[in-house]
Amino acid sequence: MTDRRLQGPVRIVGAGLLGASIGLALRERGVDVILADSSPSNLTLAVDYGAGRRAAPGDQPELIVVCVPPDVTAETVAAELGSYPDALVTDVASVKLAPLDELRALGADLSRYLGSHPMAGRERGGAVSARADIFVGRPWVLAGHDGITYRRAAAIEDLALDLGAIPIEMDAAAHDLSVALVSHVPQVVASLLAARLRAAPDTAVGLAGQGLRDTTRIASSAPELWVQILAANAAPVSGILAELRDDLDIVIAALDDVGASGSRRAIAEALAAGNTGVARIPGKHGQAKHFAQLTVVVDDKPGELARLLTEIGELGVNMEDLRLEHSPRAQVGMAEISVLPEAEEPLARALEARGWKIAGASE
Amino acid sequence: MTDRRLQGPVRIVGAGLLGASIGLALRERGVDVILADSSPSNLTLAVDYGAGRRAAPGDQPELIVVCVPPDVTAETVAAELGSYPDALVTDVASVKLAPLDELRALGADLSRYLGSHPMAGRERGGAVSARADIFVGRPWVLAGHDGITYRRAAAIEDLALDLGAIPIEMDAAAHDLSVALVSHVPQVVASLLAARLRAAPDTAVGLAGQGLRDTTRIASSAPELWVQILAANAAPVSGILAELRDDLDIVIAALDDVGASGSRRAIAEALAAGNTGVARIPGKHGQAKHFAQLTVVVDDKPGELARLLTEIGELGVNMEDLRLEHSPRAQVGMAEISVLPEAEEPLARALEARGWKIAGASE
Repeated sequence: MTDRRLQGPVRIVGAGLLGASIGLALRERGVDVILADSSPSNLTLAVDYGAGRRAAPGDQPELIVVCVPPDVTAETVAAELGSYPDALVTDVASVKLAPLDELRALGADLSRYLGSHPMAGRERGGAVSARADIFVGRPWVLAGHDGITYRRAAAIEDLALDLGAIPIEMDAAAHDLSVALVSHVPQVVASLLAARLRAAPDTAVGLAGQGLRDTTRIASSAPELWVQILAANAAPVSGILAELRDDLDIVIAALDDVGASGSRRAIAEALAAGNTGVARIPGKHGQAKHFAQLTVVVDDKPGELARLLTEIGELGVNMEDLRLEHSPRAQVGMAEISVLPEAEEPLARALEARGWKIAGASE
Repeated sequence: MTDRRLQGPVRIVGAGLLGASIGLALRERGVDVILADSSPSNLTLAVDYGAGRRAAPGDQPELIVVCVPPDVTAETVAAELGSYPDALVTDVASVKLAPLDELRALGADLSRYLGSHPMAGRERGGAVSARADIFVGRPWVLAGHDGITYRRAAAIEDLALDLGAIPIEMDAAAHDLSVALVSHVPQVVASLLAARLRAAPDTAVGLAGQGLRDTTRIASSAPELWVQILAANAAPVSGILAELRDDLDIVIAALDDVGASGSRRAIAEALAAGNTGVARIPGKHGQAKHFAQLTVVVDDKPGELARLLTEIGELGVNMEDLRLEHSPRAQVGMAEISVLPEAEEPLARALEARGWKIAGASE
């Protein structure tokens, strides 16, 4: 039994990826975890995986965590509030205002409910994919509302901290607008961009570089879940997409009459606005990004990358980030290493002296 | 002096990043490289870096490589064709149809010109950033036209091969449409998406995960260069952006009336189209992507990642790809390791037995 803040028992409703992962993490810390799921099969699976036990008469949970799809979150929270009149209830849905409004409409006791949203997950769902550590180092939003104080909801912060997450307090509307911006709109845009590739010739997609891979990676997300998320956060997502469309119209008009006065300026301003926006994304440890990138050619054979990183460590250089790049049909990869700007040239010289080839970044 | 196909001399016009990098790579192979640049300062710098020598009376280049900005590519190629009536001329501009049309209008000798486009570069420009190896493993498009055969232009393929690149033959129009799709449109879309972050509260961008980082990374590209590229490839880029806008309008309309019959289906279809599109991007070695991802928690201290990769090597597992993730304010990182699906669970168990924590992927 390790150090923990929560005493338990904790009741988890919905034994999918998030519910089972929370259960596994709490069980590791010795907390009594009660699992419930509308599917007997899902419940058995999650119990088999060690994520908790079945409910028993007389259970008195300290905290209830509702981990069901967004569409049924509010009704499930309301039912739990009714069934356990002493328990604090939270949920983990990735939208927060819609369930809160539904709970208000249902007349639920909002003095015992505080929504939350762990910014964690995996590309595959279900208890079979659950891992105790998916919350480590991730933000976990506690989405406040007028009916409850954060002090009253301390057990929810304790849950986040026990699981290694970073609790962040913001109100439900601010949360929804924030995730529209940093998660939901990027998902839509990546999907729309990737959709352009459907009918492309193989020779065209064969030229794909890291830029296309990066901009479209999340387009592989599951449509079923994302329809629920986007529908539940429709107004903020639509608002931001409409702004994007206005900018897109300006760029298209400029491209369609590229010789006209002002057209190049309009394109340049759209690109410069992107420069300004991307610079606002915090880097490692919340710093702004200001690292130099050094790209090293790594033969595509086992152990080469480990050898490179070991040698960088021997040289006493702190690597801030690492990205691998591959080109189709090449038998080499590129390791793009981020270091402090002053470390770049000495590291490049030292690696070259050890026989490594230094290359450029992609595109 | 290493093995090489080109005999030389090779004349390089424009001693910026690409010109100086080509010069450095050819000099490493013992080829006589003649450098020219409209800026005496740039020329001196590139000569100082060892990218080649200054022109001398009586120079008879086998091949001329024009490495100037897209806006002045055609006039420079035409001048070189006139000055060296026996030489083959290529250029490295990232658009191919516009310079070809300009050369036709100028009445240039197209039997000695074949445009090309190495899919390589660095985020910073100039001879000071030049590296001999930036072309290794990258596609290098040879953009054919009716006035020349690929056999006549064999020296251009030799150049690509000598520099470690992968020559790919396609006609100029197909090239421009391909790069519009895989490079130019993603650049515009990433910029427009990143621009949404300009006025966002710090708390919102503080929730940024790997999805936002990936979708907006290339938005940091230089507007000056990209205005030239986009303007020179305006019609293909505009055409693809217009298709994207039509899909965007459908999604916005569906979100604005999300309760209406058909709205959720419209959103789901946009997301499913993205699934189909992204699946077309070739992975490592040109394979389709079908790897399993295993995410390992790595303490943020020097040598930990090298230790992890060394142990994976010791376990005999071939790592197909690696991505690092950081969360703001966390003192740990996540290493997402791609392996063959059948290797995932054994590797996870073996790493856990060695004390590593296995986590989930982001989002």
